[in-house]
Amino acid sequence: MNISFIGSGNVATHMAGALKDQGHNILEIWSLHYDNAKTLADKVEATAVLDLEDFDQFADLYIISVSDDSIAEVQHKLHAVSGLVVHTSGATDINILSSIANYGVMYPLQTFSKGKRLDFKNVPVCIEASDPKSLETLKTIANEISNHVYEIDSQKRKTLHLSAVFACNFVNYMYAVSSKLLEKSNIDFDILRPLILETAMKAQIDMPGNIQTGPAVRGDKKTISDHLNLLADNPELSNIYQTLTEGIKKNWQ
Amino acid sequence: MNISFIGSGNVATHMAGALKDQGHNILEIWSLHYDNAKTLADKVEATAVLDLEDFDQFADLYIISVSDDSIAEVQHKLHAVSGLVVHTSGATDINILSSIANYGVMYPLQTFSKGKRLDFKNVPVCIEASDPKSLETLKTIANEISNHVYEIDSQKRKTLHLSAVFACNFVNYMYAVSSKLLEKSNIDFDILRPLILETAMKAQIDMPGNIQTGPAVRGDKKTISDHLNLLADNPELSNIYQTLTEGIKKNWQ
Repeated sequence: MNISFIGSGNVATHMAGALKDQGHNILEIWSLHYDNAKTLADKVEATAVLDLEDFDQFADLYIISVSDDSIAEVQHKLHAVSGLVVHTSGATDINILSSIANYGVMYPLQTFSKGKRLDFKNVPVCIEASDPKSLETLKTIANEISNHVYEIDSQKRKTLHLSAVFACNFVNYMYAVSSKLLEKSNIDFDILRPLILETAMKAQIDMPGNIQTGPAVRGDKKTISDHLNLLADNPELSNIYQTLTEGIKKNWQ
Repeated sequence: MNISFIGSGNVATHMAGALKDQGHNILEIWSLHYDNAKTLADKVEATAVLDLEDFDQFADLYIISVSDDSIAEVQHKLHAVSGLVVHTSGATDINILSSIANYGVMYPLQTFSKGKRLDFKNVPVCIEASDPKSLETLKTIANEISNHVYEIDSQKRKTLHLSAVFACNFVNYMYAVSSKLLEKSNIDFDILRPLILETAMKAQIDMPGNIQTGPAVRGDKKTISDHLNLLADNPELSNIYQTLTEGIKKNWQ
C-alpha cells in the first residue's frame, strides 16, 4: 500500500516505522514544520511535502496525526483524494472527517516518545470506519502492525481516552509529585523506581480495585494525619492528598 | 545469625524468605494470628510461638513487622532481649523502640503480595540504627538481601513514605478509576495495561517532571471540557479530574 502522513510527531513517527517494517510504501509526509516532515521522511524513505495542496491524490491511505485542534483544518485539504483518510486521535469523533468519501480512525493507545523504541506489536490499536469496506482495510493494516486490535466506536473511544488520562497522565503527575517531595529532602528518585515498576506490574495481572493498599484503605488515621502535617506548607499537595484519600476511603471502606 | 520475627504479613514473609536464602536461621515467629505465624514458620523452618512472652530472649536480631499501630505494644515485650530489635515501618520513628538496648529500622520500600514472587535483591532497603555497631550489623544484613541499601533517618523516611503513597497507593487508585470507567462502557481493562506499563517504564529512565503529557499540560481546553462532560454524573471523579488538571497546569504551564 501507498501511505501518506499528515503530521510527523511521536505517533506518526512510530506508526510510519511500523508500517514501513511491514513492507508498505510511505509515500509523502507533510507537517506544519517542514523540518520535522523531512526528518521522518528521511527515516522511512518518503518525500517531505512543503504544501499540503501539492499532496499526491492517489495514495491508498492518508493518516492524519496532528494535534486534535488541527484535524478539522487539514482534512479540508484532503476532500479530493481517492484513498481512505483516517485520524489517530483518541478524543476526536470519526465524524470530523465526514465530508471525505471514505474515512476512519486508527487510534494507538500508548504513550510514545520519539527517542524511545517500542514494539508496536504490543500497542493496542482502536479502529473505526465510515463503511464496511474501509473497516476491512483498516482491520488488515492494524493487524499487521499490532497484535491487539479493537473495534471501538467514537463514543467508547472518548471514554477510553478519558481512562487513559487517569492511567497515564495523572499517574505520571503522581510520580512527579513524589519526585519533588524527595528532591526537597535530598533523596535520589532512584529509590522509588522499583516501587513504581512493581505497582504497574501488579496491575498487569490483577484488577487494581482488588489490590489497593496504603493508609487510606486501611483507615490509618495517624499516618494520614502525619502525612498532612508533612504537607502543611503546601496547600496544593495537601488538597490532592485529601481528595484522593477521601476517594479511596469512600470506595474501599 | 539467629533471627526471629514478630509479625507474619507480606513484609515478614518476603524478608524471612530472603534472609533464609542467605543462610540465616529463622528461629521463632509470633503473630497476632497463630495460624499465620505457623504458615510462615513452616516455610522457613522456624517455630511458631503462641505467646510473645515465651519468645527466646537470645536471638541476634528481632524483626518487628506488624501494623504501625501495634509496634508500640509488641516492643514492650522485647525489653529483656539481648539482640538487636528493628521495625520495618516507613511511617514510624526509630524512637518508638528507644527503651530497648539496641534498636533500629529496616524498611523495605516495595509493595509486597504474599502470592507474588519478587526478587528481594531489587528491593530498596532503608536502614537506621540507635548506635554505630547496630548500624554496621544492619548494613551487613541489608546488603546480603538487597543490592539497594540506603541509610535514611526517621525524618527523611517519613517523607519517603509519603512519596510512596503518591507513587504507589494513589497511582493504583488512578488505575482503579480508569478500570471502573472502562467497565461502565464494557471495555476490557486489558486495553489499558500496555499504557500503564509503558508509563512506569518511562519513569525508570526519565524524571517524571520532564515527560508529563496529556490535555492539561498542553492546555487543551476542548478535551478537558469533553472529559468533564463525560464525568458530569460523577461529582467525585469530576472533582479529582479538576484537582489534578489544575495541579498539572500550575506546575507545567
